[in-house]
Amino acid sequence: MIWCSGWKLASAVSNAGGLGLIGAGSMHPEVLEEHIRKCRQATDKPFGVNLPLIYPEVDKLIQLIISHGVKIVFTSAGNPAKYTSMLHDHGIRVAHVVANTKSAVKCEQAGVDAIVAEGFEAGGHNGKEETTTMVLIPMVREVTGLPLIAAGGIGSGRAMLAAMALGAEGVQIGSLFAAAEESSAHPEFKKKIIETMDGDTFLSLKKVMPVRLIRNNFFQNIHELEERGAGEDELKEILGRGRAKLGMFEGDLEEGELEIGQVSAMIREIKPASTIIRELITDYNNALSSLYPIS
Amino acid sequence: MIWCSGWKLASAVSNAGGLGLIGAGSMHPEVLEEHIRKCRQATDKPFGVNLPLIYPEVDKLIQLIISHGVKIVFTSAGNPAKYTSMLHDHGIRVAHVVANTKSAVKCEQAGVDAIVAEGFEAGGHNGKEETTTMVLIPMVREVTGLPLIAAGGIGSGRAMLAAMALGAEGVQIGSLFAAAEESSAHPEFKKKIIETMDGDTFLSLKKVMPVRLIRNNFFQNIHELEERGAGEDELKEILGRGRAKLGMFEGDLEEGELEIGQVSAMIREIKPASTIIRELITDYNNALSSLYPIS
Repeated sequence: MIWCSGWKLASAVSNAGGLGLIGAGSMHPEVLEEHIRKCRQATDKPFGVNLPLIYPEVDKLIQLIISHGVKIVFTSAGNPAKYTSMLHDHGIRVAHVVANTKSAVKCEQAGVDAIVAEGFEAGGHNGKEETTTMVLIPMVREVTGLPLIAAGGIGSGRAMLAAMALGAEGVQIGSLFAAAEESSAHPEFKKKIIETMDGDTFLSLKKVMPVRLIRNNFFQNIHELEERGAGEDELKEILGRGRAKLGMFEGDLEEGELEIGQVSAMIREIKPASTIIRELITDYNNALSSLYPIS
Repeated sequence: MIWCSGWKLASAVSNAGGLGLIGAGSMHPEVLEEHIRKCRQATDKPFGVNLPLIYPEVDKLIQLIISHGVKIVFTSAGNPAKYTSMLHDHGIRVAHVVANTKSAVKCEQAGVDAIVAEGFEAGGHNGKEETTTMVLIPMVREVTGLPLIAAGGIGSGRAMLAAMALGAEGVQIGSLFAAAEESSAHPEFKKKIIETMDGDTFLSLKKVMPVRLIRNNFFQNIHELEERGAGEDELKEILGRGRAKLGMFEGDLEEGELEIGQVSAMIREIKPASTIIRELITDYNNALSSLYPIS
């Protein structure tokens, strides 16, 4: 949710009954500080910060989170053992994102409070195992008793219900909110999400760090290099820096990185976060009432 | 289900309350004839035949299916318009397998009776879009009113329930039955399925025809060629012929093609088909009773 989930979106989600997360992966410390402050002004509900642990300024960001009294942190892309006890010492609840059962077991050992298990269909950075949400959730459910949050492919109340059937207690939703009115994504990127059809996103850059992207000129260049057998260095050079910002925040739909999940194919309208949440719940309850036992 | 689903497995599944399918994709006409005859002797319940339409002897097989009075055919990997009306003329119900919404719409236009929508996590041949079951089922549900059967990742009653929550009316289960007692897969292949962990299967041969395989020596050779940028011709040459038979039927675990779904990571025991079905139903009902509406 980098470049999408700032204080506007996070507070809107929390005000509508969800748990809004500020995506700190694209933020320098002073920017995160501003977002935390504004988020607190915009909601009196709990909200959290999502923090990829491979981010270079992670130590500074964690100090900020602690000093500003944020009480919930979602960590990803790194070792959950490194920061969990420090965050716990400050009364902060920690959820860590995983893509396989081994990492889920490590999370439990590290003492995290909840696990987010994210499938192959999710947008942005993704696991090397390519395990889908349908397969990942029941497997993670088997290895841990921790609260389990399903991510990847949750684009409707039906999918939310499916995640619960698979054994999750909650869901983490990215793509739907990336296209929300309150998302800080560039309007052109939001328009592009609306236009995306099935088969329009692919997991790319597997040799560098797998990331799900919309097919555009940048994707195609990377894809052709990969097909030709380019190595990690050559790919990193083409990738360069700031591609995600260029695409998602500045709206360059051809040369930027457009991170979004497969469910983008089901998103057809830009809506307020509160409408998204209300529709998810209605759809969830309708789907539940259509299920019946097998005798 | 080539090399796995012969008359023994199909009749066992039908006798246990499922719809058993004979996988004709690996059968010459005289072999299919024998399997249909034996299946009819082993069950008085309905059973069907699964037929990949790209199979070279498909016309002969269809004539056999008609002349032997089989009443249900699942077709895949080809144009559903080609044979559906011919099969209908003989009172045969047709389900066609798709991996995207466009093909689902084509199925409806072709007049098929049901659609199987199969996600990226499924074993064996797979769609180019890489859309997962979690995302594919709600999308296909939106474009068709036909009976919808979910496939890919259905390895437990939980997943079966999830598929229904997503909008399916039924599920097609491969991997669990490939490892069943009555499966004609080689015992060594079944043992390998039991040992498979998450991250052990990958979609391979994308330039030729995408197929999900267990990582073994054969997979590794293909993978290295792909990483080096090998073209379709070079890949086809290494692939050669009979790799699937070699792996799954003859039990060469290193040089053969081992087709199985991601859910193989959840399979830990070789069981009779009737036990598998009984456990699926118990697990489905238990999962359903744990769900509750959101108020």
